[in-house]
Amino acid sequence: MIIDFEQTAEFLRNCRDAVIITHQSPDGDCIGAGFALRDILGTLGIRSKVICGDTFPERYSFITDVQDGSEDFKPKSVISVDVADKKLMGGYESVYGEKVGLCIDHHVSNTGYARKTLLNPDASAACEVIYELAVYMGVKMSRHCAECLYTGIITDSGCFRYSCTGWRTHEIAGEMMKNYPDIDFALINRKMFEEKSIERVRLECGAVSGMESFFDGKLNILTVTKEELHKDGVKPDDVEGLAPMSIQTEGSEVGILIKERDNGSYKCSFRSAYSVNVAEICAKFGGGGHEKAAGCTMRGNLDKIKTRLVGAVGEALGL
Amino acid sequence: MIIDFEQTAEFLRNCRDAVIITHQSPDGDCIGAGFALRDILGTLGIRSKVICGDTFPERYSFITDVQDGSEDFKPKSVISVDVADKKLMGGYESVYGEKVGLCIDHHVSNTGYARKTLLNPDASAACEVIYELAVYMGVKMSRHCAECLYTGIITDSGCFRYSCTGWRTHEIAGEMMKNYPDIDFALINRKMFEEKSIERVRLECGAVSGMESFFDGKLNILTVTKEELHKDGVKPDDVEGLAPMSIQTEGSEVGILIKERDNGSYKCSFRSAYSVNVAEICAKFGGGGHEKAAGCTMRGNLDKIKTRLVGAVGEALGL
Repeated sequence: MIIDFEQTAEFLRNCRDAVIITHQSPDGDCIGAGFALRDILGTLGIRSKVICGDTFPERYSFITDVQDGSEDFKPKSVISVDVADKKLMGGYESVYGEKVGLCIDHHVSNTGYARKTLLNPDASAACEVIYELAVYMGVKMSRHCAECLYTGIITDSGCFRYSCTGWRTHEIAGEMMKNYPDIDFALINRKMFEEKSIERVRLECGAVSGMESFFDGKLNILTVTKEELHKDGVKPDDVEGLAPMSIQTEGSEVGILIKERDNGSYKCSFRSAYSVNVAEICAKFGGGGHEKAAGCTMRGNLDKIKTRLVGAVGEALGL
Repeated sequence: MIIDFEQTAEFLRNCRDAVIITHQSPDGDCIGAGFALRDILGTLGIRSKVICGDTFPERYSFITDVQDGSEDFKPKSVISVDVADKKLMGGYESVYGEKVGLCIDHHVSNTGYARKTLLNPDASAACEVIYELAVYMGVKMSRHCAECLYTGIITDSGCFRYSCTGWRTHEIAGEMMKNYPDIDFALINRKMFEEKSIERVRLECGAVSGMESFFDGKLNILTVTKEELHKDGVKPDDVEGLAPMSIQTEGSEVGILIKERDNGSYKCSFRSAYSVNVAEICAKFGGGGHEKAAGCTMRGNLDKIKTRLVGAVGEALGL
């Protein structure tokens, strides 16, 4: 059932000992949303803990550090944030998948698995929804809460670059800067967008230096082998988010990042810079996704795989 | 003389056949400010043309294309935008340096070379100042004018990432998105922040793959040789803005980009991620700049230069 702010506020005011579930492969938005909601419940005198099927990456420690491991109560209420499908709970799906009382989300693809869902598909981030909710409820946000929400908004909106950014997204950022002059927003931006591990920098460079271009640069293919992924010091987090580099060149329309998996298959992540619908291309190979970001898994000889992918993209480009 | 919005509006309403000067090595802010002001003067029925000591880079053609070369009037009014010092006019300094009637700027370092100066050092960009001016004057901004102003704000604020971003910067971006729903803001962001020439991508990769790190990664040095700068297809624009890559690694405090010049000297661009004052370091070598971005020119053997720079940074780090 889709509910509004009033019903959500009522749910939150009446919940007790809540567990807040984020999605696996956690990003700034689900982490920020989870911990912001934890802060908000705290101001209402309600205990809660944020959980995730995977470990929270170290770079979000300024958000996650408030949880010290002492939250060992038995949950009475189950809330999910930024989780469009219960499958995305990972290891927690079997425990909580059928028990979510409230889901707060911004994905238009939300499957409605929760008993009650607060959903705003026009919001850039789940954190934008939670900011509006806190304002509606008249909750005084702590500095930490504002840092959580800002982090979620900038990571999901690509620091206000992506088309999901609305005028209200900017207005909220402005309100936060006005109300929390002590927050070092530029430092949060640096941590989220500029700082990378040295292993990540090397991975990026390796992928780009081997970039193959087709159709006059309209298509770029980056390949990362399993040897590169297993080099000393490379963490799972280092390997995420490389796909956009495949469409960074002028004139590129489609980019593919091919990552070799341990089982010999290849994970192919497609990006579209403009109008090509890459979900349709991936569907031909048993994959799927969104118009501008989609993926598929391929098996067999790498050169033959590339030939098939190049052919399909050429067809989509009308070439 | 420092003037306010009212006096600036009076100047603009009474000017005729204006030339609008931007700074050399033009960036999004001076180009956006120049062409936005040109649009605003146009709505007042006043002819103007935007000029620059250097050529406007191709990536700004969506801003600069409105000028078709037919603006061959003899200027009666001279205005500069985003030009902190008349020296930055390049080839136009000798022609207009002493004749600037109005300067609109946001640099705290503005030398006051113009007869009248509208200056807001708290603004993220000259375009932010011009937006406020247009609102003050009640001028209806064209879509093109809004695109110019948005471009200037995002390029100077690093898409709202840098500390010059204020709450009003976000508020203005929100107002523009609300008032101009037809503008493809995400596309402008892509052009400014994501698309690079293939030569630029290769230069970045070459510089990063040869990165040298010192003091446990607190200092990184990137080097670009003159051979790399003269490779086929490399444009001057491709070589700008590489220095921030020197502080992209976690734990880095200071970064140096060393670019070999044709005359055998080395241009050393320093960046500070946090608290080290790199202007002080550069001053030791006859250079200067800002706390977080400074530079100096060095001569001699490259290895010896590096040793001297590493020593000076080590001292600044207290190591």
